[in-house]
Amino acid sequence: MAIQRAWRHGPGERRPIMVGIAGDSASGKTTLTRGLVAALGAERITAICVDDYHRYDRTERKGLPFTPLHPAANYVDVMEQHLQLLALGQPVLKPVYNHDTGTLDRPVLVEPSEFVIAEGLLPLHSRLARACFDVTVYLDPPEVIRRRWKIRRDVEQRGYREAEVEAELARREPESAAYIRPQRANADIVVRFAPIEERGETPDDPLSAYVMLRPTIPHPNLSGVVSDDTRKAAHLKLLRDEDGKPVDALHVHAYAERSLTDRVERALWQALQEPAPLPSGLGRIGSEARSEPLAVVQLLLLFHVFQARGPERAMAASSVPR
Amino acid sequence: MAIQRAWRHGPGERRPIMVGIAGDSASGKTTLTRGLVAALGAERITAICVDDYHRYDRTERKGLPFTPLHPAANYVDVMEQHLQLLALGQPVLKPVYNHDTGTLDRPVLVEPSEFVIAEGLLPLHSRLARACFDVTVYLDPPEVIRRRWKIRRDVEQRGYREAEVEAELARREPESAAYIRPQRANADIVVRFAPIEERGETPDDPLSAYVMLRPTIPHPNLSGVVSDDTRKAAHLKLLRDEDGKPVDALHVHAYAERSLTDRVERALWQALQEPAPLPSGLGRIGSEARSEPLAVVQLLLLFHVFQARGPERAMAASSVPR
Repeated sequence: MAIQRAWRHGPGERRPIMVGIAGDSASGKTTLTRGLVAALGAERITAICVDDYHRYDRTERKGLPFTPLHPAANYVDVMEQHLQLLALGQPVLKPVYNHDTGTLDRPVLVEPSEFVIAEGLLPLHSRLARACFDVTVYLDPPEVIRRRWKIRRDVEQRGYREAEVEAELARREPESAAYIRPQRANADIVVRFAPIEERGETPDDPLSAYVMLRPTIPHPNLSGVVSDDTRKAAHLKLLRDEDGKPVDALHVHAYAERSLTDRVERALWQALQEPAPLPSGLGRIGSEARSEPLAVVQLLLLFHVFQARGPERAMAASSVPR
Repeated sequence: MAIQRAWRHGPGERRPIMVGIAGDSASGKTTLTRGLVAALGAERITAICVDDYHRYDRTERKGLPFTPLHPAANYVDVMEQHLQLLALGQPVLKPVYNHDTGTLDRPVLVEPSEFVIAEGLLPLHSRLARACFDVTVYLDPPEVIRRRWKIRRDVEQRGYREAEVEAELARREPESAAYIRPQRANADIVVRFAPIEERGETPDDPLSAYVMLRPTIPHPNLSGVVSDDTRKAAHLKLLRDEDGKPVDALHVHAYAERSLTDRVERALWQALQEPAPLPSGLGRIGSEARSEPLAVVQLLLLFHVFQARGPERAMAASSVPR
């Protein structure tokens, strides 16, 4: 964490705020990222996918004893190097993995803007990569939900048959356990979209969001955002993480009235002191569906990211109108 | 030059010796480099072509108001970044320009070994790139020679018609003058393969080599290598460069008896203290032809490159048997 702290920009310096979003395949990384880019605009957020650092194309992978989840299947050292360069405000010539053709294509120049989001399978795998981020996020949907998402996406968008996706999920499971899921322990924020079992909800119901805010980074004061008035939409709770450590948990209820969730969203947006009105791209899933818990999580992440910019923004965060 | 000096490795450090070889299209960069790699082996020399940092593919270039010689047609900043990383011993994911197809292909991982040669059109264009090199070379054949080389190569190997190559040479001339040739002033060593006009030679005769050794880097003591006995094959002369500055010039005569040139080559190779015998790949032009002046220039460059490794090698260089 020492490098991370040292890299936060001092007066007069212009270094981007770096956000790392890790999670297994089809855990919602792109959907989450898309809303953040929609909220602030592509000119302010540079989003890259670190799965572009795949070492092998689809044909080469066929002869290999591991899946793309394995660190050996990725240029982890070059990913680290590029994250360091971006964190220092430098451009990189980023490799490109083409999901449609399964080929490694011509690289693209990426110049960091005010915020950089690096999402993918392994952005938090190594210590040096983690040290490049100001805020780290792990997406942790229940496996039953993630499997549904992966099957739907790979069948509808990538032309696979359902049985193929299921075989691939089984093949990847040992490497998910070995390399992907351990990153959860290294995230400042763990996000879980899931049904509320206590209410008898199933994976077919709109998903609520559980957001664990670990004390590894200073969290903004949410007391002006989540109040007694809005507790049916979202509430904060002190609890213990799976590993027994204390965490703050924000729970955003999918069943809440839209007007209440709106109030939480507007309060979070206001806290960012952005001149534009609350953007409509937040909470969007695919081209039509919408999730209020997703919108709240996106705003909460923006809140954190702005907080990471420094004390002047931290003050703004605590002067939220109540 | 301050960075360059600072980067030379101290005790216990393992940083590669960096050699930059600049020159216009078809000036002999690849031929020169190939012999150096043949002499020491690909596992000891990492050779990259910085023309791979082209920003546009062949199709995109058609609509542009400049040729590939223009810095704006290249990712000069990424080239600088990669040269710095290589100089520090780090790997880079280098872009690849495919001369056969004119496309930008999948990048390749380059890990620096003991020596790194970066050759191409613009390796000495910017101050930051120059600062990455321990030894810099500019290839400066007379234009009449270079035009012959370019036409022969582009017609025989790249499928162009002679008239096309001539049109391209004309189109490139202003950018050659503006961006390529000014690099000559920034080279420690300027190499010119040319006929000896005083002897009435023409471009069809075997070419002699003129090697200017500028006092910008410490040059090895050549007195044990080039002696009175071998002065018909090669001699050193103090003269003034085109800009009036004093330089040492080594002249290697193509007309000399092979036995004399052999002695110069063996003395240079011995000075390197390499355990292997004098490699046969030196001096090779294409698959069959051979040039003794080229072999001597390659050995002289190796001599300089070894010299750059530090005092223990510098001592070795001056203890050449006489």
